[in-house]
Amino acid sequence: MSDFRGLHRPGRPLLLPNAWDVASAVALAGAGFAAVGTTSLGVAAAAGVPDGLGLAQEQTLELVKRLKKLPVPLTVDVESAGPEFAAALFREGAAGINVEDGRADGSLTPVAEQAELIGAIKARVPGLFVNARIDTYWLDTGWESTRQESGPSQGDGAPQPSGRRKAEAARRENSAARENSAARENSAARENRTARWEETLKRAHAYLAAGADGIFVPGVRDEADIRALPAPLNVLLLPGMTVSRLAEWGVARISMGSLLYRVALDAALVTAVAVQEGAPAPEGVRSYAETDRLAR
Amino acid sequence: MSDFRGLHRPGRPLLLPNAWDVASAVALAGAGFAAVGTTSLGVAAAAGVPDGLGLAQEQTLELVKRLKKLPVPLTVDVESAGPEFAAALFREGAAGINVEDGRADGSLTPVAEQAELIGAIKARVPGLFVNARIDTYWLDTGWESTRQESGPSQGDGAPQPSGRRKAEAARRENSAARENSAARENSAARENRTARWEETLKRAHAYLAAGADGIFVPGVRDEADIRALPAPLNVLLLPGMTVSRLAEWGVARISMGSLLYRVALDAALVTAVAVQEGAPAPEGVRSYAETDRLAR
Repeated sequence: MSDFRGLHRPGRPLLLPNAWDVASAVALAGAGFAAVGTTSLGVAAAAGVPDGLGLAQEQTLELVKRLKKLPVPLTVDVESAGPEFAAALFREGAAGINVEDGRADGSLTPVAEQAELIGAIKARVPGLFVNARIDTYWLDTGWESTRQESGPSQGDGAPQPSGRRKAEAARRENSAARENSAARENSAARENRTARWEETLKRAHAYLAAGADGIFVPGVRDEADIRALPAPLNVLLLPGMTVSRLAEWGVARISMGSLLYRVALDAALVTAVAVQEGAPAPEGVRSYAETDRLAR
Repeated sequence: MSDFRGLHRPGRPLLLPNAWDVASAVALAGAGFAAVGTTSLGVAAAAGVPDGLGLAQEQTLELVKRLKKLPVPLTVDVESAGPEFAAALFREGAAGINVEDGRADGSLTPVAEQAELIGAIKARVPGLFVNARIDTYWLDTGWESTRQESGPSQGDGAPQPSGRRKAEAARRENSAARENSAARENSAARENRTARWEETLKRAHAYLAAGADGIFVPGVRDEADIRALPAPLNVLLLPGMTVSRLAEWGVARISMGSLLYRVALDAALVTAVAVQEGAPAPEGVRSYAETDRLAR
């Protein structure tokens, strides 16, 4: 585990590719990555269960067992894990886990409750790297659900004129409503952003204080936010992001999340459809033997 | 099953994309393919076991169970199946299976034994489409193992000259040996091709007579061979092949085999390495939500 912890260096981030099965994990380790993660979406989708409901725990444990001989540390993206499940993963060779505070209903676990869970996992399995995932950005509504809506909903009780006047009134009304609505939205968005940021920071410090080895804020993308979050910070690689930019901003770990699984599915579909539409079967794809060797 | 059988039309082939997990099967069915297959390599590699040794039977059955609600027929690429395993797959909703005559040691099951197995499976599960796979082309040595080697091995008992004469002698000898060897190889290759062809044809007729619903000769690629094989013929899609050409040649079914799984792995690796080397994370990949929906 100390090896795995040592890979988290703010400014020289660990780039973590996430595998969905044995062959993808072995291939990624073989490509020179210093550690490999699993993707809960990939594992769940492969097994045909929805992600985020904790339905793929059995498959996740099975995958970890089958990756015992992986030559690099493996960290596990679990949707939910109590101390006993964390201990089982550690026994089977996992170097780290993610522990999420987002819940299946889109809300967030209260911060004190989540900090207690993190503390309990660290007490039970001190050697496991616990990456405390903060879902304030990921679940865009979860952290807002505790806040009041401001202002009445648009159009309530508006008079109903008729004919041409009606059309003109509607135009003016719509225009005014749009302006009002935009102003309300700007103000609400600012308020929301501030609230989200405060909630995120509060959770980051609470989880680190509870013993978390790092924090993970999937969905965060602004430089100011990333620079201001405490270390070691794990960021989800979003479209357009580069490793060098995130390194500059002080990130310690970059997760690819479900990206590789989604890329893999897309590639399979694109190839299948191209062949159906008349294209010749592609050349230069890794061979049967090379693929079979991954599992040996 | 009658629906699935009806999709095998010589000259208007069923193009069968092979899935390795639930999400890939659901995505392929959603892309408009009339049926979906599984790939034994993909299922085995995903589980971390070598293909061809019958080690992934449990995973194969599990995958079939999880695909019960697939809206199109599913045919299963099993490495080896007795009548009871075939019945279990049929009970769980499989429309068809492949039954291979290639063995793990690279040899072929004797034709009479394999025909008996096919007959037993059809007797036990008449509703299951049994695709009799003939591995004469796939296992390049299996069908040759019953034949005698012709001629002594190269260089046996040759005199050992020394110095400059030795070099010159060696040159001449090598040249002569190369010619001899080339002639022997041409003759041996012709003999081998003929033997392979006769063996393939004998097996095709024996399996159809035993009740097979179709034959599958992975690795066959020459027009003359493909046109001369009995129907309904299933061919493995090899690099450069097109559906329209195989249709012209009278093929009834085209399997993608492990191609899509290998393409998927390659795409994941290419993306991961590109990001590591500095590329921005790709845009336009299927979304998390879209992927998660495949499993719901």
